[in-house]
Amino acid sequence: MNSSTSSSETSLSAESAIRFSQRGYASADQPISVLMAQALAQPDLISLAAGFVDQTSLPVEIVRAASEKLLSQPEVGAAALQYGTTAGHSGLRDVICQRLAEADGISSEGLAARCMVTAGSNQLLHLVAEAILDEGDVVLCAAPTYLVFMGTLAGVHATSWSVETDHEGMVPESIEATLRQFEEKGELHRVKAIYGVTYFDNPQGISTTPARRAAIVEIAKRWSRKHKIYVIDDTAYRDLRYEEQDEPSLLAYDDMGSHVIETGTFSKSFSPGIRVGWGVIPAELFNVLVQLKGNIDFGSPNFSQALMAEILTSGAHEQQVETLRSAYCEKRDAMLAALEASFGGKDEVSWVHPKGGLYVWLSLPEAVKTGPKGQLFDEAIRRGMLYVPGQYCFPAEGVPGKTNTIRLSFGVQSPDRIHEGIASLAAAVGAII
Amino acid sequence: MNSSTSSSETSLSAESAIRFSQRGYASADQPISVLMAQALAQPDLISLAAGFVDQTSLPVEIVRAASEKLLSQPEVGAAALQYGTTAGHSGLRDVICQRLAEADGISSEGLAARCMVTAGSNQLLHLVAEAILDEGDVVLCAAPTYLVFMGTLAGVHATSWSVETDHEGMVPESIEATLRQFEEKGELHRVKAIYGVTYFDNPQGISTTPARRAAIVEIAKRWSRKHKIYVIDDTAYRDLRYEEQDEPSLLAYDDMGSHVIETGTFSKSFSPGIRVGWGVIPAELFNVLVQLKGNIDFGSPNFSQALMAEILTSGAHEQQVETLRSAYCEKRDAMLAALEASFGGKDEVSWVHPKGGLYVWLSLPEAVKTGPKGQLFDEAIRRGMLYVPGQYCFPAEGVPGKTNTIRLSFGVQSPDRIHEGIASLAAAVGAII
Repeated sequence: MNSSTSSSETSLSAESAIRFSQRGYASADQPISVLMAQALAQPDLISLAAGFVDQTSLPVEIVRAASEKLLSQPEVGAAALQYGTTAGHSGLRDVICQRLAEADGISSEGLAARCMVTAGSNQLLHLVAEAILDEGDVVLCAAPTYLVFMGTLAGVHATSWSVETDHEGMVPESIEATLRQFEEKGELHRVKAIYGVTYFDNPQGISTTPARRAAIVEIAKRWSRKHKIYVIDDTAYRDLRYEEQDEPSLLAYDDMGSHVIETGTFSKSFSPGIRVGWGVIPAELFNVLVQLKGNIDFGSPNFSQALMAEILTSGAHEQQVETLRSAYCEKRDAMLAALEASFGGKDEVSWVHPKGGLYVWLSLPEAVKTGPKGQLFDEAIRRGMLYVPGQYCFPAEGVPGKTNTIRLSFGVQSPDRIHEGIASLAAAVGAII
Repeated sequence: MNSSTSSSETSLSAESAIRFSQRGYASADQPISVLMAQALAQPDLISLAAGFVDQTSLPVEIVRAASEKLLSQPEVGAAALQYGTTAGHSGLRDVICQRLAEADGISSEGLAARCMVTAGSNQLLHLVAEAILDEGDVVLCAAPTYLVFMGTLAGVHATSWSVETDHEGMVPESIEATLRQFEEKGELHRVKAIYGVTYFDNPQGISTTPARRAAIVEIAKRWSRKHKIYVIDDTAYRDLRYEEQDEPSLLAYDDMGSHVIETGTFSKSFSPGIRVGWGVIPAELFNVLVQLKGNIDFGSPNFSQALMAEILTSGAHEQQVETLRSAYCEKRDAMLAALEASFGGKDEVSWVHPKGGLYVWLSLPEAVKTGPKGQLFDEAIRRGMLYVPGQYCFPAEGVPGKTNTIRLSFGVQSPDRIHEGIASLAAAVGAII
């Protein structure tokens, strides 16, 4: 849209051309907007699409008590209402790292110094993308992966490139084969990171096994020959476990703290309205991320951070996590039961049983196209339910996307509405087959 | 740092090269870090540098009451703790726009639909930079201007280009002359915006007069021939007025809502820890900014926004502004009295009398170099005070910077400490002349 010629006109044209930046133009069309527009246009729709959280279990009384505790102490209250540092509230960083070290069985020494607080873990992912990716650079992701992160990558003109996954997470052999392909093309330098949602992932609900965790970090290190390849471990759903025991994160496999960028958030495990996320970052990247964040917002709201520090320290967070685990476990069971009732025994229909998180991944017969231009999407909306087309979750490059898949979220709706929504989906499938 | 050759090595090198993005490399060195490092290294320093706010007047009781009001109503509280929309809390956007329309004497109709809430006004400035600026693009600024915004421009590889200012603000003839120069070079398309802090500006404390406000908008419109030139009106200090009456912002001169991007914040007038800023944006830019913000953080913390909406609606914000006006007015007077006591009648020493805001701009004899590598900066620190070298506030292009200037902030220190700090500065000047 830019003109490189000068103009000698002096008249005022009524409508001069608008000129966005390249990023401005690139930003204007994210697939998620289609879904949001649908949901807004038809508010009585049962949305099993958004990864939002349960409204009824939000921790109103816990935040009320924490807020009162902070603000009833004039000096503590004033400190919370003042500017903080760009890296984040030091008390909060300390308690996040103590908690993480304990869960991972690692030393907390030095962790807080490379921990920063962000507006949700999404901002951390955005900052990492800004810090390490130029146009044409590549991040290896699971096929499928977190669709918003692909938007973040597109925003910096980088490419998400998918590798195969199975019920244990990303397949190491597929990561290696992909790296080898880049090497053979003379393009290994383009690969800057491997990204994974390692606990109850978005969208499949699959957790990465300990052996796979070790393998992914080992591969990243081994392939960091001339240039470093980071591993981004997105642990957004770690606390939302409904079965079995917690496992150490990728950080536990990165002895030197040199390759793993770990992100987490209290949006899913506590409150998205408080909007506190965090990252633990290799030391060499830390200052760059802080500087980039300084240019965006000077640091996340200090008051939110002071609240979260109080809530974590008092043990109220763990209490809320227990509440959520039981609420979400019931909803997950409702969704699995509803799927069994509607799709059980049907040919070519299967779904993943997630041990945590907010999502169930459904595969329909290959002939059924679930995308926004296929018959099913409109038919499902007509029958009162909304889902996320699985194809939104597949990177354009790498492993081909599956056009017969659906991401279902059980986070927002009640068990009854989940049953109703799945029944509507089944009816829609029946109507178009 | 990128290598474009492939590697066939298979050994693990102990230290593989780190590769930041171009933005990552560009971000790593902002002048403000020098000052922050100084302040941290010597915590007993009297800092007249940072534009932070008065600690003793932070609105602890107001926030306590607002928080209790929200959280004592289960449904209202839950809504505040849930995700919000990326554009921001609708109640907050409404009250911001009603307040703005009243202050500017314009209609509030349609304003809220192009109002978005951000993490401080800084994030709004960042988003605008992202949305409209590519490498080599130009924003015209006052000489001197807000130094952090220059960092934001540098972050997107755009250029801040300064025009002359006098006691009435940016000089229209200088803006026109600069635009003409770009046109003559065939580079008018590079100029995407004019940026001004129009109330008690950072760093000079100068307000733009009504005639100048009208002229700046008229120039932007008239020069938007082939391509639109926006005007960014940064009203961060508007509420902090200690003399005379409020004047309408640039928005009042933009009948069609087509050229002015207005930003404001409650960080200075209320609490930086709540960290709520806003922008009113021409309609064509609005969705792009929302999409870009969606990629960064999905929207600012909903809880902070719900708190600010309650605080504005209840009238508590106006009450706090009154408290701040009297606290800051006393501090401003202390700084002006201290300057008179230390520098009054001295040759080639002058300062601006600000009618609001947080800053006093001091000019010393031309021979005195105030920069971080000059004698005065170190001497002042040795004597226990810190200031912002004026040269940090001048864009590299355009009107030459003045190396004998200083930005002093009276926001943080008590009147006694302000006197002490200015006395130390005067002693430092005396010692090096």
